[in-house]
Amino acid sequence: MTTIDRAQHDKLANAIRGLAMDGVEKAKSGHPGLPMGAADIATVLFTRVMKYDAADPRWPDRDRFVLSAGHGSMLLYALLYLTGSPGMALDDLKAFRQLESKTPGHPENFMTAGVETTTGPLGQGLATAVGMAMAERMLAAEFGKKVVDHHTYVLASDGDLMEGISQEAIALAGHQKLNKLIVLWDDNGISIDGPLSITDNVDQVARFKACGWRSERVDGHDPEAIEAAIRRAQKSNKPTMIACKTVIGFGAPKKAGTSKAHGEPLGAEELAAAKQKLGITGGAFEVAAEVLKAWRGFGAAGAASHKDWNERFATLSERKRGEFDRRLAHAVPAKLDKAILAHKKALIAAPQAVATRKASELALEAITAVMPELVMGSADLTPSNNTRTKAAEDFTPKTPKGRYVRYGIREHGMAAAMNGITLHGGFRTGGGTFLVFADYARPSMRLAALMGLPVVYVMTHDSIGLGEDGPTHQPVEQVASLRAMPNMRVFRPADTIETAEAWQAALERTDGPTVLALSRQNLPQLRTDASARNRSAAGAYELLAAEGGKAQVTLFASGSEVELAVAARKLLAEKGVRARVVSVPSLELFLQQDEATQAAVIGSAPVKVAVEAGVRFGWDAVIGHDGAFVGMHSFGASGPYKDVYKHFGITAEAIADAAMKKHNA
Amino acid sequence: MTTIDRAQHDKLANAIRGLAMDGVEKAKSGHPGLPMGAADIATVLFTRVMKYDAADPRWPDRDRFVLSAGHGSMLLYALLYLTGSPGMALDDLKAFRQLESKTPGHPENFMTAGVETTTGPLGQGLATAVGMAMAERMLAAEFGKKVVDHHTYVLASDGDLMEGISQEAIALAGHQKLNKLIVLWDDNGISIDGPLSITDNVDQVARFKACGWRSERVDGHDPEAIEAAIRRAQKSNKPTMIACKTVIGFGAPKKAGTSKAHGEPLGAEELAAAKQKLGITGGAFEVAAEVLKAWRGFGAAGAASHKDWNERFATLSERKRGEFDRRLAHAVPAKLDKAILAHKKALIAAPQAVATRKASELALEAITAVMPELVMGSADLTPSNNTRTKAAEDFTPKTPKGRYVRYGIREHGMAAAMNGITLHGGFRTGGGTFLVFADYARPSMRLAALMGLPVVYVMTHDSIGLGEDGPTHQPVEQVASLRAMPNMRVFRPADTIETAEAWQAALERTDGPTVLALSRQNLPQLRTDASARNRSAAGAYELLAAEGGKAQVTLFASGSEVELAVAARKLLAEKGVRARVVSVPSLELFLQQDEATQAAVIGSAPVKVAVEAGVRFGWDAVIGHDGAFVGMHSFGASGPYKDVYKHFGITAEAIADAAMKKHNA
Repeated sequence: MTTIDRAQHDKLANAIRGLAMDGVEKAKSGHPGLPMGAADIATVLFTRVMKYDAADPRWPDRDRFVLSAGHGSMLLYALLYLTGSPGMALDDLKAFRQLESKTPGHPENFMTAGVETTTGPLGQGLATAVGMAMAERMLAAEFGKKVVDHHTYVLASDGDLMEGISQEAIALAGHQKLNKLIVLWDDNGISIDGPLSITDNVDQVARFKACGWRSERVDGHDPEAIEAAIRRAQKSNKPTMIACKTVIGFGAPKKAGTSKAHGEPLGAEELAAAKQKLGITGGAFEVAAEVLKAWRGFGAAGAASHKDWNERFATLSERKRGEFDRRLAHAVPAKLDKAILAHKKALIAAPQAVATRKASELALEAITAVMPELVMGSADLTPSNNTRTKAAEDFTPKTPKGRYVRYGIREHGMAAAMNGITLHGGFRTGGGTFLVFADYARPSMRLAALMGLPVVYVMTHDSIGLGEDGPTHQPVEQVASLRAMPNMRVFRPADTIETAEAWQAALERTDGPTVLALSRQNLPQLRTDASARNRSAAGAYELLAAEGGKAQVTLFASGSEVELAVAARKLLAEKGVRARVVSVPSLELFLQQDEATQAAVIGSAPVKVAVEAGVRFGWDAVIGHDGAFVGMHSFGASGPYKDVYKHFGITAEAIADAAMKKHNA
Repeated sequence: MTTIDRAQHDKLANAIRGLAMDGVEKAKSGHPGLPMGAADIATVLFTRVMKYDAADPRWPDRDRFVLSAGHGSMLLYALLYLTGSPGMALDDLKAFRQLESKTPGHPENFMTAGVETTTGPLGQGLATAVGMAMAERMLAAEFGKKVVDHHTYVLASDGDLMEGISQEAIALAGHQKLNKLIVLWDDNGISIDGPLSITDNVDQVARFKACGWRSERVDGHDPEAIEAAIRRAQKSNKPTMIACKTVIGFGAPKKAGTSKAHGEPLGAEELAAAKQKLGITGGAFEVAAEVLKAWRGFGAAGAASHKDWNERFATLSERKRGEFDRRLAHAVPAKLDKAILAHKKALIAAPQAVATRKASELALEAITAVMPELVMGSADLTPSNNTRTKAAEDFTPKTPKGRYVRYGIREHGMAAAMNGITLHGGFRTGGGTFLVFADYARPSMRLAALMGLPVVYVMTHDSIGLGEDGPTHQPVEQVASLRAMPNMRVFRPADTIETAEAWQAALERTDGPTVLALSRQNLPQLRTDASARNRSAAGAYELLAAEGGKAQVTLFASGSEVELAVAARKLLAEKGVRARVVSVPSLELFLQQDEATQAAVIGSAPVKVAVEAGVRFGWDAVIGHDGAFVGMHSFGASGPYKDVYKHFGITAEAIADAAMKKHNA
């Protein structure tokens, strides 16, 4: 145990409180309540428990600290400053919540070194941490405990535990026995609407136990008790939740313990009174020299441990070190390109008329052979999503080298865990569900897009083409709604070749996530070229030119409807109308090409028809308000898929008719 | 207790099993495992426990049965047929999963009388049932137990309990002590990927207890034990979860107890063997005459109770009966129109420059005064969403007449509960959160749109205009992604008047949900007319005509950016360019108007500029590929909102510049 006495602890913790109050006050907005209430917990973590070297927030073997309660961002910024993180100066604290500062309203890992993940939307940090702890175990199993052996600590609020995603996360963590995951719950009994008792009476300690966790209660203002509980947690073979009873806004004479302390500045008077009560002297943002010195000492204490680690790391073989570095950097293996090209050539040699979900499985067989870092999984739809290759082994407590995660029926928890696996480093990851259930995972997918994490979503059953399961399972607007999300890339490939190219583009991308929208139903192989060039990577390309003269009609289509467009082109030819077919595997990627490229692909045929078994929303950018659209205008219906396509008028005949109508107009 | 002996019970239950097997076999797809496994539970409910009159599935005081495990739809269809529901004939069962049948793949309440809610996306049925139970209590408190006194029964699967929404739902139900909610968990230990043990080890009985429920375990194939547990549940002052241990595909000799029984036909051989084992004779879809007769007897047994209810209902005053009928029919009160008009006139007389979230509160004060059935609430953002009127009382176990629900930090659970409140009948409802967190609630919002439920989402903080909370809280793509959803209507009003009109349109709509996207920041009152006409209801209208000649530029804008468009119009006038301003409170509603109306509003000015602090996605339908768009092209940023607007180039000057550039091109 520590040698820090209570008086010293209080000074250290109160430094956090003082800076948090000042930061919020200066910004005229923010959340002082959590940093003040949880300062003792954070102080214990950063002065007694955690392995970190403040000088190098990227040290791979550092303990991770996730502030799931992201609104308490001043807690994290104060810690970074106090421990001496190179990227956080006092001026940064003074710029809290100002444009382009390192101290935005909620922690953003892409703005601030030392922030492990972007939090704010509640529940996400906790669920992301589950993925980090999984990655730690996987990486340790592969590279050895001498270079990978760290904990993941989470500070969670009431709101984190109320959000449904928390259940998916804790059930998954309990099942996986992630014993190096330790959650400290800031049990302050207050939310925005008032005392928690007006909305909740869950016994969280009992709930976590029911989910396979250790859990216990401590006084969140007693550093010895907190430390002792963490030491017990470190010895457990289960993940641990420590309920830390705290007072929100601890130290504020009038507002402490009320929702008034949660999300607004204390006001000058209350702030001054709080500082007096806490024994904080000096002006705004001032930390007593000896307190700052003490904090800096704790921040530097891990340097020795870091140095030891460097020495241990140096004992690894050169090959292993190179692989470790490559993996941590998310660099794509050199062999990937070749593997994809060989796979495409094999497909050209022996074409396959399979569903694109099956085409994805075929591509994965080629990819996983050269990409040992690829962790796949599914939210209990493995046989439907085709995400598991033949050689795959499940990731379980007994088989930590397994690269296949059985996420259970937890789409949201899966997406957040994938964020965590990626953020931790060492792995790329993809996970499967039905496309319609992207809706369940959307908040975590949005964070992947915001953070620029290159995760891959394998989303099968991508339209009414799934047939009998009906409108609850038939995505109609999901493709459009995902295209609308900044930095999210959606591919809806038309055949085996485009599917391989979509996988290639998804993996070569390292600055954001990709959705692969894949069919349940079989599709013909339309592509006959297997050049090294990834034609899908431009978002759209001419699949078939017009024959016998200048095109009169251009048919744009994606995924399973490209087959229909090709058939419609033939019908039009029979009527003497020349049509070309443009395959659009990624509409939004196409719209990001330069104007000349776009213009060349769109072409100058007077009639433009877009075909997609989804809503029109977004297609006007290609076909214009005057273009014809053959697709969905409502939710789908239950029935054999060919009947459903006919029912909604998405057929080669309907496409040809729509084109003829415009042609004759 | 019952007088049905075990042999008779088995025959009744096996009739369900036989029909379920046959239905799936004929359709060549579907899920036989759940109906076979849960047939005993369902038989106990429909022969011994539930109050219903099969002849009238709309009887307001019936017990509700929610098949949360919607994939087991044949269970429900078999029950409707066996009990003699007028809308379910044997031919309907034979048309299982065929286009436009009453027996779609998953239960759809809009296709089939007797289906209480549309299920299939897991967790939704359970969470919807929570709302039904809330509505039952509210309605009983208002109209008396003699006309409103029924239970809500849920059959839930493993998947329902794994989904995060289940946690929000059960925590809410436990907190509200919804003792007339009884959940029967089909604890069969199997999911699609295999035995549940590969993904889950949650002790569900302990978990529910931790959330304030009664819970216990029974043998799910022992009718006496099931009935006794339900009787105990009926006497509890808490909601109850009964874990019924069952064998999936009960009766199938080879496949029972395995994931093979879950989601595909048994095959002719296994089916025949199962029927033999279960003692089911006759051909496909054949139910022995005496068994069908017995079932029909149970289906008709509730008629007496229904008749008694009619007599009790007749003793209510004429006014009360009329109000009850109006409320159950979701008919808007006659006074609403007048109240809105008076409110608009008052605003014209004394204009208010307030945030539209505040404008919404002002409108609600006027509306709730004439609409006693309006149940409002918020997911712990009451002071931010402005959803609570001055006179509102919280809905709690002690104040069941309260019309304000404190949902806690549970957006998804809130949206599902709102579906349930609406489906139950007797209430209209609206709930608040931040617009960005629509993502958390999306699966339930989609079901509202699919079912055509007229719920209202009050979604404030609708753009980068929320400022300091940063990109995790700033919606950028949410408006577009909601517009893309069929039957979802989105209003983004520009001022107090449009906000009142949006509320009016949302409430007058009875065939689907409406999102109100509302600003955090103050906005000027732009409208100066208070005619009875709801100008916002057409989706878009000319707010300001061009002055001094034909318009050279049309500026289209929504919400908080209309103010900027108005200012840009002035800047353009100073440069000698004539511009008109079209306010677009609902883009998708505008695009549903006839072509002539659209053309008139869009007008013929050569330059078109759209302005919205969101992504361009969708606007091309109005401005075309060549139009200029002033809005967001990425996620937002943390900072004071005026700085953020300037940073992203969304200003009156930028709008005028974009227009001038096109004008001069």
